[in-house]
Amino acid sequence: MFPQNQWIKIKAPATVANMVCGFDILGFAVNNPYDEMEMRWMPRVNNEPSITIINIDDYNLPTDPEKNVAGAALLALIEEYEERINNNNTAHSLETKQQSVSAIKFEVKINKLIKPGSGVGSSAASSAGAVVGANHLLGNIFSKDDLVRFAMNGEKLASGVKHADNIAPCIFGGVTLVRSIFPLEIIALPSPQLYVTIVHPQIEVRTADARSILRQQVLLKDAIKQWGNIAGLVAGLMKSDYELIGRSLEDVIIEPVRSILIPGFDALKLACKQAGALGGGISGSGPSIFMLSKTKEIAVAVEKEMKQLYDGMGLPHHTYVTTINQAGVEIAA
Amino acid sequence: MFPQNQWIKIKAPATVANMVCGFDILGFAVNNPYDEMEMRWMPRVNNEPSITIINIDDYNLPTDPEKNVAGAALLALIEEYEERINNNNTAHSLETKQQSVSAIKFEVKINKLIKPGSGVGSSAASSAGAVVGANHLLGNIFSKDDLVRFAMNGEKLASGVKHADNIAPCIFGGVTLVRSIFPLEIIALPSPQLYVTIVHPQIEVRTADARSILRQQVLLKDAIKQWGNIAGLVAGLMKSDYELIGRSLEDVIIEPVRSILIPGFDALKLACKQAGALGGGISGSGPSIFMLSKTKEIAVAVEKEMKQLYDGMGLPHHTYVTTINQAGVEIAA
Repeated sequence: MFPQNQWIKIKAPATVANMVCGFDILGFAVNNPYDEMEMRWMPRVNNEPSITIINIDDYNLPTDPEKNVAGAALLALIEEYEERINNNNTAHSLETKQQSVSAIKFEVKINKLIKPGSGVGSSAASSAGAVVGANHLLGNIFSKDDLVRFAMNGEKLASGVKHADNIAPCIFGGVTLVRSIFPLEIIALPSPQLYVTIVHPQIEVRTADARSILRQQVLLKDAIKQWGNIAGLVAGLMKSDYELIGRSLEDVIIEPVRSILIPGFDALKLACKQAGALGGGISGSGPSIFMLSKTKEIAVAVEKEMKQLYDGMGLPHHTYVTTINQAGVEIAA
Repeated sequence: MFPQNQWIKIKAPATVANMVCGFDILGFAVNNPYDEMEMRWMPRVNNEPSITIINIDDYNLPTDPEKNVAGAALLALIEEYEERINNNNTAHSLETKQQSVSAIKFEVKINKLIKPGSGVGSSAASSAGAVVGANHLLGNIFSKDDLVRFAMNGEKLASGVKHADNIAPCIFGGVTLVRSIFPLEIIALPSPQLYVTIVHPQIEVRTADARSILRQQVLLKDAIKQWGNIAGLVAGLMKSDYELIGRSLEDVIIEPVRSILIPGFDALKLACKQAGALGGGISGSGPSIFMLSKTKEIAVAVEKEMKQLYDGMGLPHHTYVTTINQAGVEIAA
């Protein structure tokens, strides 16, 4: 285990879920923006709380662990840690019992640089950052799949649904496929160099609302189009075929419904593609929009189009030009 | 162009469409069974018919080109050939005009070794074999995508729908993805060595019937499971990850509906997987069932299970143990 009371620093990347055609299954991490966190552990005594959360930022997020996404994720991790510690059968996968601590406490400082509600995995970054940090402090006893499982408790708190399409790329880095959620199966997908332009128009779209407007049934013929594109996107990423990636970035099921919540969506998408973007769409449940490009020059030209459109509409916004983050959550001691 | 009046021999492989989770988009060719064909060309004079079909087998399929799938495919090819020949603008993509013939006629002998209605692309083999043969005779002036387009006219005649999930692997070989049908886009997917066991229970399932029982709407949550599996299957094939291929061979949308048309389907699938098959399901619209295995030994053990089950039911059947065909339709002069 990491020495007690010593702080580690954590960098948890923003993530883009769905990747247009891969609703609930695909996602990727980006190098900017990211959350900064600090964590340390100590033995827990008597009935004191197992988690203390300190917000460094000004978002006034709840510090009660059960109401905070990082807290919810950590509570799941602590529960399983203590179960394992108190169960001799699983001792082989842990530090020897002499070294281990049967009741543990974490202190977490969170500096959210990813604005909550922006649609680029702000809650996932907190949840994933917290469990990756905790695992580091505990001597990396849990697998990445375990960590995703814990962190999904944060997503459930944030959106009402246990989904992993932000958590998985945040923890694994790169592009990830959640082939199945129960049982959990995450597959890392190789990808060629891609530049990512993100615009966050400063409007609020609640994940739960964006989910509730979706139709529960879809036409079989639309589903077939969608899975053709998903198969094309996976093949394009694995073959480093940029044109195929671009052609596959089409969503005939979710985007037509959700895009009505985002001002200027169709015009913005068209302008970005005319500026050379391979394609893109709503990031997660929005309101952020992302575009993928082959070169930095195109990604910057795309950013210019985004700014121009939202400036023209008088809509405050924030943009990022970045690349796919291959590392996932990173720890600096 | 190939010398006129000289026969060429054609070998057109059977194909397995859908590949369980990839309804209407995935398919692969197998080395056994296959159709044998012979073809030759000659200039067409006056109003004589452009296609003569001679059946070598005993299936009594129609010889009227408009009612024969190979004929329907060839009619589309001839129409486009003659349009191109009579249009100077496209002369660059053809033989020089001196050498070319403005009205053409084909004679086709068909020996169907793939039983019609068996669900392993019997009609696709005839259509694809005919157009690949014709293209060879014409000096390979058409692309594979063109040939798929022509051959789909045969599928339309056979099933009422222009679908390419048998035609594409028959022409390209290997595993193919039809990302989009309008416009047509076919992507060859690499695959590891896979053994294929096929059983054809001798019952009749008409493609049009198998299509008509499908529901036009599917639950979004089922569609999400399905596209997770499709993405997993494509990734598994491209990573040569046999276990991932196996886990991804699940169909929550089509198989539960169609499998009721196939006696003993669930028991057979279970027995095959217990014998070591990675997975499998209905081939195309059935009634054939296919299973993929990692080794020949397992594929043979799977065949034994299939035989045992259908022997026990007193249901006549035919089995094949084969491999994925990487060549597609082959020509021997």
